[in-house]
Amino acid sequence: MTYCVGMVLDKGLVLMSDTRTNSGVDNISVFRKMFSWQVPGERMIAVMTAGNLATTQAVVSKLEERTKEPDERETTLLNGPTMFTVATEIGKLLRQTIREVQEDNNTTSRFTASIILAGQIAGMEPRLFMIYPEGNFIEASSDTPFFQIGETKYGRPILIRGYERDMSIENAVKLLMVSFDSTLKANLSVGLPLDLMVIGKDEFAATHERRITQDDEYFRTISSNWGDALKSAFESLPDYSLDSK
Amino acid sequence: MTYCVGMVLDKGLVLMSDTRTNSGVDNISVFRKMFSWQVPGERMIAVMTAGNLATTQAVVSKLEERTKEPDERETTLLNGPTMFTVATEIGKLLRQTIREVQEDNNTTSRFTASIILAGQIAGMEPRLFMIYPEGNFIEASSDTPFFQIGETKYGRPILIRGYERDMSIENAVKLLMVSFDSTLKANLSVGLPLDLMVIGKDEFAATHERRITQDDEYFRTISSNWGDALKSAFESLPDYSLDSK
Repeated sequence: MTYCVGMVLDKGLVLMSDTRTNSGVDNISVFRKMFSWQVPGERMIAVMTAGNLATTQAVVSKLEERTKEPDERETTLLNGPTMFTVATEIGKLLRQTIREVQEDNNTTSRFTASIILAGQIAGMEPRLFMIYPEGNFIEASSDTPFFQIGETKYGRPILIRGYERDMSIENAVKLLMVSFDSTLKANLSVGLPLDLMVIGKDEFAATHERRITQDDEYFRTISSNWGDALKSAFESLPDYSLDSK
Repeated sequence: MTYCVGMVLDKGLVLMSDTRTNSGVDNISVFRKMFSWQVPGERMIAVMTAGNLATTQAVVSKLEERTKEPDERETTLLNGPTMFTVATEIGKLLRQTIREVQEDNNTTSRFTASIILAGQIAGMEPRLFMIYPEGNFIEASSDTPFFQIGETKYGRPILIRGYERDMSIENAVKLLMVSFDSTLKANLSVGLPLDLMVIGKDEFAATHERRITQDDEYFRTISSNWGDALKSAFESLPDYSLDSK
C-alpha cells in the first residue's frame, strides 16, 4: 500500500508521500514515490504514485526519458502549454503502461496504479490533479481541495476537519504530519521515511523539501503529542449522561 | 456497508452499531444490526452484524427461533455453559448459512458476513468475540480490547488513542460517538440512527439502551463540537518551521 496527499493552498502546493512498498507483509522495501521536474522560473511539476511499483516506475522512467531527448520528441512535461496538457500526457502514458502489461499477462485486474499530479506553469495558477489508471483525471477544486491516494481512510477525518485553503504552509505540513501519523499507526503497509515537498506559489521551484525519517525530531514530537492533544480534545467535549433518554 | 464497535471495559461491555444497509448508493434502508437475548440474573448476550443482510437476518432469525423451542432443541444461546460455547454455536450457524446460499448460487465470494458477540454469563467475566464468515472466532484481550466490523478505518485512530480499559461507561459512549461521527462524515454507507447498548458488569441486562437519531441533542453537540476540539488540539501542537532541515 501507500499513502500520498496533495493539497492546494492559497500559498502554493504541499505534497507528502510515504516510501514503503510491499509484496505481502514479509517483503517490504523503501522506494521514493515523489518525483519532480523543473524549468527554473517557468514551471515546476511533481507527481506522487500509488499502486503497482513496476507500473509506476515505468511511467516515471518514460517521463524522465522524454525530458532527456528534447530534440527528438515533444516533451509535454517540459513544454506543454498548460497543466491540463501535462495531465493528459501522463494519463495516456499511465493507461498505456498498464494496458501493455495486462495484455502480456492476459488479465484486466492487476498492475494498476494512480497518480497525483501537482504543479504550476508561469502565467497560470498552481493546479492539482488525480489521474486514474484509465488515463482520465479530475482536478482539485474549492469543494475538494486535496487528493489522497493509497491508504486514504485513517488519515482522512483530520484532513476534512483541519484543512483550510488559506492556512499557512507551516500549518499544512503540521496537518499532513498528523494525518500520516494516524495512518502509520494503523496500517503496516504505510511506512517511514516520508517525503515532503512544498511548491510555493509563483516560485516554480521546490521551496521546501525534506525527507522525514524516524529520527526526525518534529515528527516524533507531533506523533507523541497528538495522542495527548486528542485526549484533551476528547475531554473538552460535554460528558454523556446515562440518565438521558 | 456498516459500522459496529464492541468494547470491553472494567465496568462492562459497550456496543454501538449503525443501521444503514445499502445495495448500491441509490438503494438504502434502515435495518437494526444489534440484537440481544437475556436470561434475567443469569446471562445477557448481544450480537452485532455486518455483511450480507439476507445472511445476517437468517442467522439472527435462526438464533431467535431456537430460543422459542426450548423443549425441542438445545438452545446454546440460552443454556450454553460459557460464552465460548455460544460463540462456537453462532460461528457454526453463520458458516452454514453462508455456505448454503453460496452453494445454491455456485459462488464462493458473495453472501459473507461477520458478527461481534458480547455477553456475560453468571459466574464468569464479560466477554467479547469477533466471529468470522468461516465460523471461527477470536476473543478480545487486554492487548486488543475492542472489535470493529464494517467500515472500520475512519473511526479507528480515535479509538486507538482514546480507549482505556478503566474508563467510565459515559466516556466510552462519548468515545464511540466521536468514532461514529468521523465515520458518518466520510462514508455514505454508514448512517444514522445508531443503536447503543451498555451491558453493565454482573447486571445481566442492558443497563442502558438507546437509539440515537439525527435529532439526538447529545450526538449533535458532539458532532459539532468535535470539529472545534480537533482544531484546538491541532493548534496546541508545536508549529512546523520551514527553516528546519
